[in-house]
Amino acid sequence: MTKIRAAVVGYGNIGKFTVEALEAAPDFEIAGVVRRKVADVPAELTSYKVVTDIRELGHVDVAILCTPTREVEKYALEFLAMGINTVDSFDIHTKIVELRRSLGEAARKAGKVAVISAGWDPGSDSIVRTLMEAAAPKGLTYTNFGPGMSMGHTVCVKSKAGVRNALSMTMPLGDGVHRRMVYVELEPGASLEEVTKAVKEDPYFASDETHVMAVESVDAVKDMGHGVHMIRKGVSGKTQNQRFEFNMSINNPALTAQLLVGVARASMRLAPGAYTMIEIPVVDLLPGDREELVGHLV
Amino acid sequence: MTKIRAAVVGYGNIGKFTVEALEAAPDFEIAGVVRRKVADVPAELTSYKVVTDIRELGHVDVAILCTPTREVEKYALEFLAMGINTVDSFDIHTKIVELRRSLGEAARKAGKVAVISAGWDPGSDSIVRTLMEAAAPKGLTYTNFGPGMSMGHTVCVKSKAGVRNALSMTMPLGDGVHRRMVYVELEPGASLEEVTKAVKEDPYFASDETHVMAVESVDAVKDMGHGVHMIRKGVSGKTQNQRFEFNMSINNPALTAQLLVGVARASMRLAPGAYTMIEIPVVDLLPGDREELVGHLV
Repeated sequence: MTKIRAAVVGYGNIGKFTVEALEAAPDFEIAGVVRRKVADVPAELTSYKVVTDIRELGHVDVAILCTPTREVEKYALEFLAMGINTVDSFDIHTKIVELRRSLGEAARKAGKVAVISAGWDPGSDSIVRTLMEAAAPKGLTYTNFGPGMSMGHTVCVKSKAGVRNALSMTMPLGDGVHRRMVYVELEPGASLEEVTKAVKEDPYFASDETHVMAVESVDAVKDMGHGVHMIRKGVSGKTQNQRFEFNMSINNPALTAQLLVGVARASMRLAPGAYTMIEIPVVDLLPGDREELVGHLV
Repeated sequence: MTKIRAAVVGYGNIGKFTVEALEAAPDFEIAGVVRRKVADVPAELTSYKVVTDIRELGHVDVAILCTPTREVEKYALEFLAMGINTVDSFDIHTKIVELRRSLGEAARKAGKVAVISAGWDPGSDSIVRTLMEAAAPKGLTYTNFGPGMSMGHTVCVKSKAGVRNALSMTMPLGDGVHRRMVYVELEPGASLEEVTKAVKEDPYFASDETHVMAVESVDAVKDMGHGVHMIRKGVSGKTQNQRFEFNMSINNPALTAQLLVGVARASMRLAPGAYTMIEIPVVDLLPGDREELVGHLV
C-alpha cells in the first residue's frame, strides 16, 4: 500500500500531537515538519526533516496546518496552489463559511481538496449536532464546553501585547452559556488593565463573561484536559420529547490532532473543493477497506 | 422548490410514523402508501392514495420501505429496476454487507440510489460508533440498548407459528451484553414450548439470553420507548484514556421514521449505488441550503 505523505505545518501543541497521531496511523508517512525556524529541533523530531519551506520535503499529499487559526488561510492558499491538499482546525465559528468559499475556489482551481475547521468543535461535535438535528428536526441543542483549556482562546490571548504566556479556561454555566477564565503571565511593565481590555474586545471573547487574572506561572496551572456535554430535546416527525446527549472527557490537542489525521486521510478520497466535517462521510475518516468497515461498524 | 415525491411501502408502526415525518418535512410530498390490501384504510390516510402496486402512484422519486426486514431486498430490487430510489431500515447486522452488494449492483445498473440499514441501530448509532473510532482509533466501544421494545425482534417473534401478537424487550446488562424478554399472545392450541424453541433458534435471538413468556394481552404491556447508552474509552494518537459517551431516550419507530426520511432526502444527492449511513455526509440528511447549514451547524 502506498502511504499518504503528510507534512505537519507548525509545531505547537497541536503539531506535536499530530506527529504522534501520524506515527500511530498505519497508512501515513511523515514527509517532514515545516517551522518558521529550524534551529533548536526538539529530540522527538530528529528522525524527520524539519524545514522552513514545504518545497524542501519533496512530494507531499497533504499539509496538516497546525498554525494559529488566523494564519490558516494564507498557508492553505499557498499550498493548494502548489497542488497539496490542506486540512486545518480553523475555529472562529463566525468565519467558517467565508473560509470555505475562499479555499473552495482555490481548491477547485488546483484540482485539490481542503478540509476546514476539523477538530472537535468545530469538527466532531458539528457531526453530532447535525446528526441530532436530523434525528429530531424541531428542538434545541445546547453545547456545553469544559471545564477545560481552550486552545484557540489561549493562542488569541498570547497574541496580545504585554502577554508572555496565557491560559484561557472555558467554564460551562449550563444551557450553552460559558464563562472564560483567563490567566496571564505579563511581560515586565505590561498593564493588566490594558491586556484585559484587549482580550475582552476580541471576537473570541466579546460575547462571553470573561475574567482576566495575572499569575506568576501559567505552566503551574495548565492542564490540557477538556470536556463537552451536548444535549438536544426535540421532535421526530410529530413525536415530542426525543432526547439525545453526547459527552466526552479528553486531552484537547490529542483529539484535535487525531481528527486532523482522519480528515487528511479523507481528503485523498474527496472530489476537488473545500469541505467541513459534516460534509464528509464519517467512514472516510478511518483507514481500511470500505466493505470491512461497513461490516464492522454499521 | 420541487418537492421530493415519496412512497411509503408498508403501514405498520414504522410506516405510520414515516407518514407523520413526511408530513412534517418541508421538502417532501407523499405520493401514496403501498399496502398488501387496500381495504380498511385508516382515517389518517384518507387524503392519500393507498394502492397495492407502486406503479399506480405515478412518478415516485423514492420508496421508503417500512416492510419487515426480510422483505426489504425483494421490494428494493423491484423498485430500483423501476427507476425508483429505495431506503430501508434492514436490521440484521450480519447480513448488511451482503444486502449492500446486492442492492449496490441493482442500483448502479438502474442509475439509482439505495440507502440501506438506516434508522438508529443500524443507522445513527453507526455514525456515532464510527466517529468515536475515528476520535480514538484504539479502544473498545460498548453499545447498550434499552430497556425498550425492539421492532425487528418483535416482528421476528410475530412471524413464528402459533404467535398471535408479541413484544420483544431488550434489557441492557452492561458492557454491550443484553437479555431479551419476549412476551407472546398465543393462538388457541399453540404450544409455548414450541414457540420458545423457534424464537431461541432464530439468528435474531441465538446469541442473547432469551426468556419467552405467555401473556393475555401484549397491548397491555407495550411501550414504544427505547434507549441507547454507547461508550468508548480509547487512544487518540498516543494519548490514553480519551472518553466518549452517547445516550438517547426516544420513541423507537418515530426516530426510525425520521431518519428514513433523512436518508430519502440524501438519496436524491448521491451517485448511483448502495450506501449505509456511515457512507453519507450527515449534512445531506437535512433540508436546506448547504452553505447555510454549514454556517449554522459547524
